[in-house]
Amino acid sequence: MKGAQMIMIQPVNTLSKPELEKQLSELCRQYEDVKGKGLKLNMARGKPAASQLDLSMDMLQLPADCTLEDGTDARNYGILDGISECRKLFADLLGLKAEQIIIGGNASLNTMFDTLASLFLFGTQGHKPWSQLKYEGHTPKFLCPVPGYDRHFTMCEELGVEMIPVPLLEDGPDMEVVTELAAKDEDIKGMWCVPVHSNPQGVCYSDKTVRALAAMETAADDFRIFWDNAYAIHHIYEEKTVLNIIEECEKAGHPDRPYFFFSTSKITFPGAGVSLISSSDANIRELKGHMAAQTIGHDKLNQLRHVQFFKTPENIRRHMEKLAGELRPKFDMVLESLDKELKGSGLLKWHSPKGGYFVSVDTLPGCAKRTVQLAKEAGVTLTGAGATWPYGKDPEDRNIRIAPSFPTIDELEKAVEIFILCVKIAGIEKLLEG
Amino acid sequence: MKGAQMIMIQPVNTLSKPELEKQLSELCRQYEDVKGKGLKLNMARGKPAASQLDLSMDMLQLPADCTLEDGTDARNYGILDGISECRKLFADLLGLKAEQIIIGGNASLNTMFDTLASLFLFGTQGHKPWSQLKYEGHTPKFLCPVPGYDRHFTMCEELGVEMIPVPLLEDGPDMEVVTELAAKDEDIKGMWCVPVHSNPQGVCYSDKTVRALAAMETAADDFRIFWDNAYAIHHIYEEKTVLNIIEECEKAGHPDRPYFFFSTSKITFPGAGVSLISSSDANIRELKGHMAAQTIGHDKLNQLRHVQFFKTPENIRRHMEKLAGELRPKFDMVLESLDKELKGSGLLKWHSPKGGYFVSVDTLPGCAKRTVQLAKEAGVTLTGAGATWPYGKDPEDRNIRIAPSFPTIDELEKAVEIFILCVKIAGIEKLLEG
Repeated sequence: MKGAQMIMIQPVNTLSKPELEKQLSELCRQYEDVKGKGLKLNMARGKPAASQLDLSMDMLQLPADCTLEDGTDARNYGILDGISECRKLFADLLGLKAEQIIIGGNASLNTMFDTLASLFLFGTQGHKPWSQLKYEGHTPKFLCPVPGYDRHFTMCEELGVEMIPVPLLEDGPDMEVVTELAAKDEDIKGMWCVPVHSNPQGVCYSDKTVRALAAMETAADDFRIFWDNAYAIHHIYEEKTVLNIIEECEKAGHPDRPYFFFSTSKITFPGAGVSLISSSDANIRELKGHMAAQTIGHDKLNQLRHVQFFKTPENIRRHMEKLAGELRPKFDMVLESLDKELKGSGLLKWHSPKGGYFVSVDTLPGCAKRTVQLAKEAGVTLTGAGATWPYGKDPEDRNIRIAPSFPTIDELEKAVEIFILCVKIAGIEKLLEG
Repeated sequence: MKGAQMIMIQPVNTLSKPELEKQLSELCRQYEDVKGKGLKLNMARGKPAASQLDLSMDMLQLPADCTLEDGTDARNYGILDGISECRKLFADLLGLKAEQIIIGGNASLNTMFDTLASLFLFGTQGHKPWSQLKYEGHTPKFLCPVPGYDRHFTMCEELGVEMIPVPLLEDGPDMEVVTELAAKDEDIKGMWCVPVHSNPQGVCYSDKTVRALAAMETAADDFRIFWDNAYAIHHIYEEKTVLNIIEECEKAGHPDRPYFFFSTSKITFPGAGVSLISSSDANIRELKGHMAAQTIGHDKLNQLRHVQFFKTPENIRRHMEKLAGELRPKFDMVLESLDKELKGSGLLKWHSPKGGYFVSVDTLPGCAKRTVQLAKEAGVTLTGAGATWPYGKDPEDRNIRIAPSFPTIDELEKAVEIFILCVKIAGIEKLLEG
């Protein structure tokens, strides 16, 4: 690291109490120095940097022509499931079928919420509405691989879905746990999955995992996988492909199990992108039925704006390479700094992602909250400790999600330096307590 | 009328059976002629004409600058309730409070559905969720002024709301009926209102009506008015203002009663506009709470696009005058043709709107379906007969909604001519039956 001279941490288990105390005292001195600088840095949310957004600015001059290829005027009412050129573009990009895609509004989060809400209000494929369960003494439950995405958990909490954490391993959710739970409890109605570059660890599901998810028997006939493919093409170091969940579920005889979500929030503009949902023919038909009461159609001019800007899947991939070029130095900095300052220290474990938006780290047990608090007091905002767990409760208080994308590289350098300092202080404090 | 020589209808009650038969025979001959032309005309939906949409084309070059007045980058995530400049613009336009506005997605229909869905899922202000009612042997009910907007009714049907038609009079819903029903049945949870240039009649609610709606006692404490102010500034012949329902409800001690909806669908682009909901502080706080689980925020770039295009409420009003200039000749043509061909005939009654998008007509009892069918066979698509009533059931089979906006003036001339022919045929057929 440039800047302040950092103390190199030896493996903490080799240090005596006086040695730890000495280190802590020096670290605290450095911390007080940093605190005095009155910094204001943010590594909390997975927000693209302004430099990434600049790459899509030409899109704001579009659409140049509002007539669709079938002659329809895209400026007027209509087209419930989205313009066909947009459905086709994303079908080709993601290996989906255009007729199994509904283009949604400006964010897949909203599409997920609406889908979950429709299961509560109407049920699916003839099964009873999930809202009915609670009046019959049951509670719908979801399996939640952890650590996971806080907004998935918020959605469940809002709708009264009980969340059951299941471990996320190197190749996806722990399928021994998942299959056992799903098979025995008919109140387990679904599961969250971020199959590519997962939020926050950057895990990509193996073929074996995807096939197991598609094939497993579930006690609930209306068990649904919410397949949030938010980072499907968001590679930074390595291109990763994951099996097509819709095809695998169809092959396994559970065609209606998956809802596949995707959006351009982290491709063009967060909040001004387009989202999509894909599923079986029967589910798409059902969703369109409900949607027909909810809307005349989503923003076709924004769909067309995206189609005219990208034109082809290849152009989208090229655009993603440029975005990766913006992100890579930032991820390099975080990962190299962690390596240099904390590798072998015994104070922090982390997963090196190949893409996505985050670096997930685990402190010593009981140190995540303290680390985040220390960082906050020194002017560095991190995602709240616990946010990656259902109900915000990380049972071991270990996981922290680092989001390196938004700050500039200079800001990030300072923020990471402070973060590392805080990890060390919180860790050594804990060791001295014990 | 130009074109074919139409038969002038004398008051039908002065004609003998042979005279009616002779007229019918001549009308049928004309009808067969028209049918042979293979026309394809549409007066079904309230869609703006291309010439209206052309007036907003400059908006598609915006936003020119994506930095908000408080320095926020509108291209990135955030701002749940909409950018403040957009809330302020519409607050000033509509006499609302900016802090009581949430900017929604691309259409107010979706905002209405989501609001209704949230009442089913979560209830409001501590009252039980409406979805719970049906498991307790109750059915939530809505009062529906008739004729009304079919998409309101579809929404209710989808969510299992029982609809109770109440007559819409010249100055708004029949408040004797409304107050009596609302006071006695606690399952009556709400009411649809299109207070300005109502769909389809063009009725504008009187001050007395608005005050009565605000003041009336309701058996349900969580009674809600869905105030769909879709045509608030959509004047064609005469500017109409209606009392502010939010202020009136507050004065009357029922601040949480109204949800006020508005959108730019018929101002800029249908499907690519911005919508809003406004209500009491407590309701807005509650809605934001649910929204926080549903979305990070709606499309801020589209909000900014609208703000930069219009800049001031005065510019919006000026834009509406231009749109009215496009619509006026079409409404003139419909109303003058009806006057000339059917006034005093006893075959059709209609309401002359001062604004909005429709002309609502009543045929002789039992003639609406037949008229629409005849028109369809001659190549003129009308809104389905019955569509203006809950469940698509017009008990007297009389009401037809004419939408003159979308066709060109030449197309409209032909379509109206055919429509009038069909009204005469269906009417005389019915008289000869009786």
